[in-house]
Amino acid sequence: MTESWLPVEKNSNFPLENLPFGIFKTATLTPRAGVALGNYVIDLSALYSSGLMNELGIRENVFNKMYLNDFIGLGKPVWQSVRTFLQTIFHKNNPSLQDNPNLVKHIVIPAEEVQMLMPVYVRDYTDFYSSEEHATNVGIMFRGKENALMPNWKHLPVGYHGRASSIVVSGEPLHRPKGQTRPDDAQPPVFGPSKQMDFELEMAFIIGKGTQLGDSVSTEAAEDHIFGMVVFNDWSARDLQKWEYVPLGPFLGKNFGSSVSPWVVTMDALAPFKTEGPVQNPEVLPYLQYTGKKNYDIHLEVQIQPAGSDAVTVSRSNHKYLYWNMAQQLAHHTINGCNLNIGDMMASGTISGPTEDSFGSMLEIAWKGTKPVDMADGSKRTFIQDYDTVIMKAWCEKEGIRIGFGEVKTQILPVKA
Amino acid sequence: MTESWLPVEKNSNFPLENLPFGIFKTATLTPRAGVALGNYVIDLSALYSSGLMNELGIRENVFNKMYLNDFIGLGKPVWQSVRTFLQTIFHKNNPSLQDNPNLVKHIVIPAEEVQMLMPVYVRDYTDFYSSEEHATNVGIMFRGKENALMPNWKHLPVGYHGRASSIVVSGEPLHRPKGQTRPDDAQPPVFGPSKQMDFELEMAFIIGKGTQLGDSVSTEAAEDHIFGMVVFNDWSARDLQKWEYVPLGPFLGKNFGSSVSPWVVTMDALAPFKTEGPVQNPEVLPYLQYTGKKNYDIHLEVQIQPAGSDAVTVSRSNHKYLYWNMAQQLAHHTINGCNLNIGDMMASGTISGPTEDSFGSMLEIAWKGTKPVDMADGSKRTFIQDYDTVIMKAWCEKEGIRIGFGEVKTQILPVKA
Repeated sequence: MTESWLPVEKNSNFPLENLPFGIFKTATLTPRAGVALGNYVIDLSALYSSGLMNELGIRENVFNKMYLNDFIGLGKPVWQSVRTFLQTIFHKNNPSLQDNPNLVKHIVIPAEEVQMLMPVYVRDYTDFYSSEEHATNVGIMFRGKENALMPNWKHLPVGYHGRASSIVVSGEPLHRPKGQTRPDDAQPPVFGPSKQMDFELEMAFIIGKGTQLGDSVSTEAAEDHIFGMVVFNDWSARDLQKWEYVPLGPFLGKNFGSSVSPWVVTMDALAPFKTEGPVQNPEVLPYLQYTGKKNYDIHLEVQIQPAGSDAVTVSRSNHKYLYWNMAQQLAHHTINGCNLNIGDMMASGTISGPTEDSFGSMLEIAWKGTKPVDMADGSKRTFIQDYDTVIMKAWCEKEGIRIGFGEVKTQILPVKA
Repeated sequence: MTESWLPVEKNSNFPLENLPFGIFKTATLTPRAGVALGNYVIDLSALYSSGLMNELGIRENVFNKMYLNDFIGLGKPVWQSVRTFLQTIFHKNNPSLQDNPNLVKHIVIPAEEVQMLMPVYVRDYTDFYSSEEHATNVGIMFRGKENALMPNWKHLPVGYHGRASSIVVSGEPLHRPKGQTRPDDAQPPVFGPSKQMDFELEMAFIIGKGTQLGDSVSTEAAEDHIFGMVVFNDWSARDLQKWEYVPLGPFLGKNFGSSVSPWVVTMDALAPFKTEGPVQNPEVLPYLQYTGKKNYDIHLEVQIQPAGSDAVTVSRSNHKYLYWNMAQQLAHHTINGCNLNIGDMMASGTISGPTEDSFGSMLEIAWKGTKPVDMADGSKRTFIQDYDTVIMKAWCEKEGIRIGFGEVKTQILPVKA
């Protein structure tokens, strides 16, 4: 771990090697861009105003904004130069900021004083379905073992569009949705609060470079279009979803809200954790073929915390299990000429691993309600109850370096009156 | 027809009773809001700057913008007061602007001098599937007559999220998409340009008043949330769609582009054309019940024009055929607490009528390729060919008053190299 003159605990999510970007505010500061370092948040707007960043040639204070989009729009060389600059001035041997305590006071803010906000304005939101284990589990439950995977599944990364406007940041509670369900196929549908409120453990990447209508992005060029990643909880009301989704896909079962972690970890910080993906068989069409390592070894964890009780870990999974990688997802998404924009969010789909303790949704963990999960307070869960909080964490770790995402933590409130 | 001092032809789409809003630019003017009147465009930004609108109490020039969203955000009373104001100052008996030829020259622009742009920034885009005739036709083709309508279809207005960023305005050409298809179920999928490029005749409404997460909109309150309507061409690559859409819905078969007409016709202009909708049987759940007339008698027409040939009309339909009306669509969309935003676009789904000459897509008109349609140049169409232009028109007409939408006109270019 590279040492900073700011104290960074050994197991911190945010060493100098990470430096994720986010948007924060405080009791006195308006929303602005920041970077996490240990238990501190670096106020990039104040740092810009100090003049210390002048050498980077950024013409406007793109950090004094509600969202990271304008900063992201400056392009990958600028993201990288800001990152390198921060690694330099916060290095323990660098005096330029360290020796100016008045400036430090304005630029370095204790994490407990900030409130994190949505990091980006999400232009369009796409959700993929790229975990073979998840697709298989759901397939077995709904169609039986023989027909678990649809015929297209191994030929293309199945995806669909979701609601961009209802994506909220960690800490914002969501209300349980109400709507139509049909619990008994022989009876008409009924109306009421969802009885099968579920999470989906996902990660999402954020587009950093757009394209024009008609253009396609190759698997090779895909990485240049990705700014970074967040943890993503794709909340799902299974009973609404089951009744509505034929033939055009999920709608009200999903669009009441999705939750993301606030810190966007850059692809540069994640680069040391690249790893091989699963072997793809049958061979995919040329536009989906790729070379090199495109999966990432990112540990994932889900906890459920009932009101007034301790959190219990209900899943341990890993991003590397994904059958389709992000480069393939992007190549597929744009092969028809669909345009990309800065701030587009592309979620992975539920990331389930091969074992029962690595499944990424309550639907799978409690296997359609047949295997209830014990909570610390003695209660059991097959789905999420009112006032439960769901916490998802993600981190990479290797050779003493931990690159953490922090968490996305969301409490479910009763149906809004 | 109320007479204006500006010449308005008898069969014009845009009499004083209409006054649709749009965004235009000219060789010398930056993008700004305008209103169509006869063969003229009223420059609302110039009108605002003239001071003539001062009495309306609009504090900022919301008309000097790239999109109508800021104007729409001022609320329904303001939309209505601007409309009434325009009906007053352009009335033949009103001298205030009429007698000031220098001002008229700046405010009234011949339609042939303007280029129309996207009228709104589309925050989120939803597509419904609300024509019983269309859903039945497609169902018969893919699943046979017995299972044509899915079990949920008559209980809720099926819908899904689409791509907001690829919605373009009339006049912008689109490239044919390429991608994966599986023409032979016994063989692996193949790659290439779509061979089944289709249009879908739809209309869309634009949200004029947002909601918070967790809130629902009743069928009664729905009209307060709608700013106006446009003609909508939901381009569809049937071969891509067929292979990809199971189980999560349309994706690359649709998101390469959708096209809209540039003038947003307000619900006030459309009010005289309200009409009864189809009887709904079985009875719908209480949150989908409504009182009064919620359908609209809007004539629709689709033409295909091969390059260098005349346009041929291939469909004549009507918005009133829709089984689910806009109030029901909105009540359903928000019953789970999904939030609405100004500029959201909600499309109807293909509007097919009961007869073969009123079908709203080539898939239906040429019945899966089995009934080719004759073009004026002697060629035939089962789907859309490169360089074909598709033109959709919409208008209401009653007692000598015509409220027109104009058209959405799009040429299909070959796959982008």
